Amino acid sequence: MGMVGGGPGALIGAVHRRAARMDGGIELVAGAFDINPRKSKQMGRELYLNPKRVYNNYKEMLEREMKLPESERIDFVAVTTPNNWHFPIARDFLNAGFHVMCEKPMTFNLQEAKELRKIVKKSRKVFGLMHNYTGYPMVRLARDMVSQGDIGKVRKIIVQYPQSWLATALERTGNMQASWRTDPKQSGGAGCMGDIGSHAENLAEYITGLKIKEICADLTIFVKGRRLDDDGNCLLRFNNGAHGILHASQISIGEENNLAIWIYGEQKGLEWHSEHPNYLYVKEPNCPLQVWRRGNAYVGAKSAAAARATRLPSGHPEAFFEAFANIYCNFADTIRARLTRTKPDELALDFPDVDDGVRGMLFLDTVLASAKSGKKWTKMKT
Amino acid sequence: MGMVGGGPGALIGAVHRRAARMDGGIELVAGAFDINPRKSKQMGRELYLNPKRVYNNYKEMLEREMKLPESERIDFVAVTTPNNWHFPIARDFLNAGFHVMCEKPMTFNLQEAKELRKIVKKSRKVFGLMHNYTGYPMVRLARDMVSQGDIGKVRKIIVQYPQSWLATALERTGNMQASWRTDPKQSGGAGCMGDIGSHAENLAEYITGLKIKEICADLTIFVKGRRLDDDGNCLLRFNNGAHGILHASQISIGEENNLAIWIYGEQKGLEWHSEHPNYLYVKEPNCPLQVWRRGNAYVGAKSAAAARATRLPSGHPEAFFEAFANIYCNFADTIRARLTRTKPDELALDFPDVDDGVRGMLFLDTVLASAKSGKKWTKMKT
Amino acid sequence: MGMVGGGPGALIGAVHRRAARMDGGIELVAGAFDINPRKSKQMGRELYLNPKRVYNNYKEMLEREMKLPESERIDFVAVTTPNNWHFPIARDFLNAGFHVMCEKPMTFNLQEAKELRKIVKKSRKVFGLMHNYTGYPMVRLARDMVSQGDIGKVRKIIVQYPQSWLATALERTGNMQASWRTDPKQSGGAGCMGDIGSHAENLAEYITGLKIKEICADLTIFVKGRRLDDDGNCLLRFNNGAHGILHASQISIGEENNLAIWIYGEQKGLEWHSEHPNYLYVKEPNCPLQVWRRGNAYVGAKSAAAARATRLPSGHPEAFFEAFANIYCNFADTIRARLTRTKPDELALDFPDVDDGVRGMLFLDTVLASAKSGKKWTKMKT
Amino acid sequence: MGMVGGGPGALIGAVHRRAARMDGGIELVAGAFDINPRKSKQMGRELYLNPKRVYNNYKEMLEREMKLPESERIDFVAVTTPNNWHFPIARDFLNAGFHVMCEKPMTFNLQEAKELRKIVKKSRKVFGLMHNYTGYPMVRLARDMVSQGDIGKVRKIIVQYPQSWLATALERTGNMQASWRTDPKQSGGAGCMGDIGSHAENLAEYITGLKIKEICADLTIFVKGRRLDDDGNCLLRFNNGAHGILHASQISIGEENNLAIWIYGEQKGLEWHSEHPNYLYVKEPNCPLQVWRRGNAYVGAKSAAAARATRLPSGHPEAFFEAFANIYCNFADTIRARLTRTKPDELALDFPDVDDGVRGMLFLDTVLASAKSGKKWTKMKT
Repeated sequence: MGMVGGGPGALIGAVHRRAARMDGGIELVAGAFDINPRKSKQMGRELYLNPKRVYNNYKEMLEREMKLPESERIDFVAVTTPNNWHFPIARDFLNAGFHVMCEKPMTFNLQEAKELRKIVKKSRKVFGLMHNYTGYPMVRLARDMVSQGDIGKVRKIIVQYPQSWLATALERTGNMQASWRTDPKQSGGAGCMGDIGSHAENLAEYITGLKIKEICADLTIFVKGRRLDDDGNCLLRFNNGAHGILHASQISIGEENNLAIWIYGEQKGLEWHSEHPNYLYVKEPNCPLQVWRRGNAYVGAKSAAAARATRLPSGHPEAFFEAFANIYCNFADTIRARLTRTKPDELALDFPDVDDGVRGMLFLDTVLASAKSGKKWTKMKT
Repeated sequence: MGMVGGGPGALIGAVHRRAARMDGGIELVAGAFDINPRKSKQMGRELYLNPKRVYNNYKEMLEREMKLPESERIDFVAVTTPNNWHFPIARDFLNAGFHVMCEKPMTFNLQEAKELRKIVKKSRKVFGLMHNYTGYPMVRLARDMVSQGDIGKVRKIIVQYPQSWLATALERTGNMQASWRTDPKQSGGAGCMGDIGSHAENLAEYITGLKIKEICADLTIFVKGRRLDDDGNCLLRFNNGAHGILHASQISIGEENNLAIWIYGEQKGLEWHSEHPNYLYVKEPNCPLQVWRRGNAYVGAKSAAAARATRLPSGHPEAFFEAFANIYCNFADTIRARLTRTKPDELALDFPDVDDGVRGMLFLDTVLASAKSGKKWTKMKT
Repeated sequence: MGMVGGGPGALIGAVHRRAARMDGGIELVAGAFDINPRKSKQMGRELYLNPKRVYNNYKEMLEREMKLPESERIDFVAVTTPNNWHFPIARDFLNAGFHVMCEKPMTFNLQEAKELRKIVKKSRKVFGLMHNYTGYPMVRLARDMVSQGDIGKVRKIIVQYPQSWLATALERTGNMQASWRTDPKQSGGAGCMGDIGSHAENLAEYITGLKIKEICADLTIFVKGRRLDDDGNCLLRFNNGAHGILHASQISIGEENNLAIWIYGEQKGLEWHSEHPNYLYVKEPNCPLQVWRRGNAYVGAKSAAAARATRLPSGHPEAFFEAFANIYCNFADTIRARLTRTKPDELALDFPDVDDGVRGMLFLDTVLASAKSGKKWTKMKT
Repeated sequence: MGMVGGGPGALIGAVHRRAARMDGGIELVAGAFDINPRKSKQMGRELYLNPKRVYNNYKEMLEREMKLPESERIDFVAVTTPNNWHFPIARDFLNAGFHVMCEKPMTFNLQEAKELRKIVKKSRKVFGLMHNYTGYPMVRLARDMVSQGDIGKVRKIIVQYPQSWLATALERTGNMQASWRTDPKQSGGAGCMGDIGSHAENLAEYITGLKIKEICADLTIFVKGRRLDDDGNCLLRFNNGAHGILHASQISIGEENNLAIWIYGEQKGLEWHSEHPNYLYVKEPNCPLQVWRRGNAYVGAKSAAAARATRLPSGHPEAFFEAFANIYCNFADTIRARLTRTKPDELALDFPDVDDGVRGMLFLDTVLASAKSGKKWTKMKT
C-alpha cells in the first residue's frame, strides 16, 4: 500500500493508516504525504518508512514505483488529499495499473466523477471509496434486514449529520482542516453537504437499497464571510415512493459527529447512531423495543456481513477505526483474490465503489441546483 | 368547571379531568360529555356528579347553567370534543360570559380561528388553549434560557413528532380515536399535521419566541384509502433568519409519542424529549454536555416559571399529567384573579391562548397550501 | 378520607393528597395536619376544607369524627407524620373502626410493628402501607414475569437507592425534612436504611416474591455529628438460594432518587430504574435486549396488574404521582368492596399491607444488628 | 515484539496483536503461539511471520532469540497464555533480559506474584500488566480529577463487572475459553473474581489512588459441577475511610461486559461505563449533570494523560482496542526511552506494572480467605 496525502496534521490520512494496519494484512510501504516535500519526508520518517519510497509528489511516486519489480511495487494507493486532487491522482494510478482507495467525496465535481467511472471500468482495477460508516457491523445488519424484507416496504427515512466545529470562522484562525474544507477551490461547490451531507446520503441509500429521486434543498451560510454552505436541510423522495429528510450541519452547536438514521418500513422501524455504533434499535408495533447488540450470535445469524465485520465479543465495544478497517478488509480481500486469481468471498465485495462516488456527486449536484431553484423539487438524474 | 366532550372511551377529556383535579383548586361540577345523551349521563355517574348538572348537549348545558345563581354556576368550560365542535361551543360559552379552556387545534379552519380571536377579545374572558407540552417545567426553562439570551441568536431548529398508531387503517376497525381524526369533516383539512404537527409548531415558537415565516411542506398519505395526511415533512424559515425542519408522522412505525426539539443558537444548543421530560440537554462548545434536571435549585434560579411548574423534588419524576395540570393551574389562577379582582401573578399568565390558536391554524393553512404548491416556499401570513 | 400529618412544608403529605385525588374516587374531608394547631388550620384553609373538620390533633379528630353519622364520617385515615407517630395513630384509628393508609416505615421499631399486625388482624380493617414504588406498572409487570416463571429461578438481585441530599449536615440548617429524619427519637434506630433502604428491600421482595434470609451490613455515618447512618451497604442471601446486594445512601453526591433494581434468573434478567419508570429492560441470552414500554397491549397481555395501573397511552409518560395513586386506587377499591359488601377485584388486593410493614421493620432490625456484629451473616427472623 | 500464547481461537492474544500494531511503533516478529506446535506454526503463517521465528514452545523461543544479534532480537515478549503459565514465562524472559508485557491476572497465586515482583525489580526490565481498562482516556481523566482534588475526599465506591457468558456449563461444551477459565489448575483459586473481579479491583484503585484495606466476600458457584466461583459480591473498606461494593459475575444473564464504576467524593461524584467508554459523568450538588466527552480540549486541559490516549476528534468514538493500545503505547515508549537512553515522557510511565499485579493477587487471596471465613472483615495485607 502507498498513500498520497495524509501529511503532518492531517486527520483522515492517519485514520486510513491505522485502519489499513489493523488486521495485519496490509502494509504501508510508500507515500507522497504532503504537497510540501519536506513535510512528506518528515511523515515518512515518523512512519519508519524506507526513505527511498517517500516521494516529493504523487507523480514522482507513480513513476518510481512503476520502475520497481512488480513484486516489490505497491499494490494499491490510498488517496487522502483535499477533494480537488482526488480525480487526477486516482486517474493516473488507475491508468498505470494500480488499484485505488479514495477518500470521499470522490471528485471535485460531477463531470470528473463520471469520467472516473469510465476510467475505473476500463482499467478493470479495484476501486474503493471510503464511505467508512458503511463499515459498521450494525449498519450492515440494518442493510441486510431491509434487503431480507424484515421491515417491509420502506416509507420514511430521516438521516442527519450535525456537527458544530465550524460554528465560528475557524478557517480564519489558521486551522488547516477548516481552511481547505471552506475553500471552493479545494472542496468544490458544496461545503457542509459535501463534507458530511454526502455521508448521510450514502448511508441512507446503502441501508435501504433505495435511490433518491427528487430533492428540495435549503442551504445556508451562517458564518459571515464563508463561501460554502455550513448548514443544509433537504426533503427527499425516493424511487420506491418513500419520503425523507436529510440534514447536515457544521454549525449545530454542541454536536460532535451526530450522524444518525431512522428508517420506517411498513412492518418495522430501525434506528442507528454513529456515536453509539454497537447498537441497532428495532421497533415493531405491539412488541418491546429491541436493541440488537454487536457481536452476538443472533446478529451473525441475520447478517453474515455484520459477523464478518466484527472482531470482539459483544460488550467489548468497537468503534470508528474498526468500521474504517472493515472497508479496507473487503477492499484488500478483493485485491488479494485478483492477485491470487481466486474467486473473492461474496462478502468481500461489500465496499463502496465508483458507482457510490458518482451517486454522491450527483447528490451534491442536485442539492446545489435545488438550493438555487424556486421550484420545490429538483430531480436527481442518473 | 364544566366540560363538553370527554365521554366514555375518549382519551383527552379524561386527561383534562385528571389535570384539572390535580392541585385541588378546580372542581368539575357539570358536563355534556357525549353527543349521545345516554353516554353523557353514564359518564356523569362515573364521575359522581350531580345528575342535574349532567346535560344532553352543550346548548342545554349553557342555558341551564346560566339559570343558576352566579355563585353556583360553573366558572369555565373545557372543550374537549372533536375539532369541528370547538368553535361553536367556545363561541357560545364566551358570548354567554364563561371563561373557556379549549383543546387544540383551536378550530376547524383559519377563518373560525380569526373569528374566535375577535370574540375572545371582545368578551374579555379568559381563553386557554391546551398546548400541554408548554406546561413542562423543562420546556419553560428552555424558553427562559432563550429569552434571557443564554444560547445567543437562534440559527437552527429541528422539531419532530413521530407516532406509529395510524401505520395501518385503524380507522376502519371501529377505533373511535382513529375514526374522527382521519375524517376531514371532523378534523379539518390536516390530519397528522393538525393532530400533532401543530404541537411541534407551537413548541418551536413557544421556546424560541420566533415566528415561522415560510414553509416548504411535503405531506403524504401512506395508508391506502385514508383522506388526510398521515405524514408530513417541512422545511422552515423563521423571522430572525433561523432555518429549521418540522416533521410529524403517524406512520413512523414503532414510535410512541416521540415529540422532541433541538435548538441551536450561536452560543449554545438545547435538546428536549417529551418521553424523557425531566431533562433538558444544554450543549456549549468546549464544555461538557450539561443535563439540567427538573426540581433543582439551579433550575429555579434560571426559570421561575419552571420552579412554579414543579411539584416534586428532583429525582422523583413528573410527567404528562403534571404538565397538563400546569396549564390548568395558570389558567385557573388567572380566572381566580379576575374573580377576586386582584392582579394575577405575572407567571400565571403563561399559558397558550387564542393567539397561539390562530398561529396554529395559520400554520396548518400554510402547510396545506405549500403541500399543493410547486413553489419551494409558501409565506405564512399573520 | 382524613389525614394526620402533611402540614405546611411537608413533602409526603402533599403527595398523598395529590395521589388520592387523582382518579376522582377519593375525597379529603378532614385532617389534623400539624402538631401545631395553627398550622393545621392554615393547611385546612389552603385545601378548601370545612373548618369544622380541621382538627387540632389526631385524638380530637378521632373523637369528633366518631360523633358524625356514619355516612358523613371519613372512611379511612392517611398517616403521614414522622415515623414515631405512625403506631399510636394507626392503632387508635384501627381500634375505632377506621381503615388506615400508613406512610412507611410502618412503625418506630419492630415491637410496635408486630403489635400493629395483631391490631390490624383483630380489627379486620383494611390497612395499606405506602410502599409507592410497587405502584409502578412496570414494577408490577416485573413481578408478574417472575411469578409466571419467565425469568427462571432467581439467582442474583442488586438493588440500590442512592441519594445525595444529606451529603452535608443539612439538618443543622433548619431543614425540617432533614431534621426529623436524622433524629433517632423521631426516625427510629435506622437513618438512611429506614428512610430509603426499606424501599429497596420492599421492592426486591415484592418483585421476586423471595424473602431475605441473611444480611451482612456495613452502615456508616459520613457526616460528622450525625447520629444515624447516612449510608449502608448490605450483602443479602435469599430463601431460595439467591444472593444479592442492597445499598442505599444519602451521601452519594449528585444522585437524586436513583432507586434501581437488577434481577438475574436462570433464563432472563430484568432491570428497572425509578427515574425512568416507564421502561422495563428484559435480557435474554442470544436475543436482542428488550425494552418493554408502559402502556402497550403486550404489557397488559403479560400483566393485568400493569394494565390496571396505567392511565395514558404508551409514549405519554407517567411517573411518581401515578404510581402513588395506584396504591390508593387498590386500597380504596378494597374498602369500597367492603362498604358495598361485594367481592373486590382480585387485582385490587395488590397493595402493600401490614405484613410488608413487619418485613420492613424486621429488615431494619436485622440490618442494625448485623452492623454491630463482627459475624458475617445475621439471620433475618420471621 | 514476540508473543507467547494467542494461538488459533484465542481471544486475548489477537487483541494484544491488534493493539500493539495500532500505532505503527511495534512490530510482531516472533512467537510461540500455542502449546500445540502445529497450531503455533499455523498462527505464524496467518500472521505472515518469518517461519524461522515461529517456535514450538516458549523455551525454544527464548533460546533461539538469544542467539540472534541484539539488533534483530525481539525487544519484549507479550505473555497471553492461560494464567498458570504467566509466571514461568515472564520469569524466564525477564531473567534472560527481555522486557515483558503480561496478561492479567499476573500469576497463578500470591506467592508467584511476590516472587515475580522481586525478579522484575532485580532485572531492571520494563514489566507491563495488561489491565486494559486503565487505558481508556476517560478513566485517566477520572483518575486525574480525583488526584487533583476535584471531587474531594472519596467516601463511597461502587464497582461492578457483570457478564453472562458462563450462566450455563459452557465449559462442558468444548468451549476453550470457558474450559481453562473454570479449571482451578489453569486459572488459580478464583474463577469469576480472578477473571473479571480483578479488573474491577484494579479500576477502583487506579482511579481513586486508594487501597482496599478490608474485604467481606460472598462467593458463589451457581452452575452445578463447576469448581470455581462464577459470582461474587464484596463489601469493601478503603485506607482513607471510604466504603464500597465490588461485585462481579459470569451468570448475570443478559449482561455482556458491563464493567462500571461510581465514585462519590465529598464534593462531586463520577460515573463511567466501559460499554460507553467515551463519556465520563460528573455530578455536583446543585449543578447540572455533566457529561465529559472524549476528545475535547477541556478534557485535555484537565488531563494530559487523557489527551495522550486519544486518537480521534470528539464524536468519532474510540473503544476497546484503542484503550488496549494505549497501554502498549506507554509500555513501548518506556522501553524505547531505555533503548535510546533518553528520559521517558512522564506520561509514558502510566501503565499497570508488577505492583498492580501483586495487588491483584493480594486481592484474590483476601477474597478467597474472606469467602471461607465467618468473620465479617478480612484484612488485605500488603
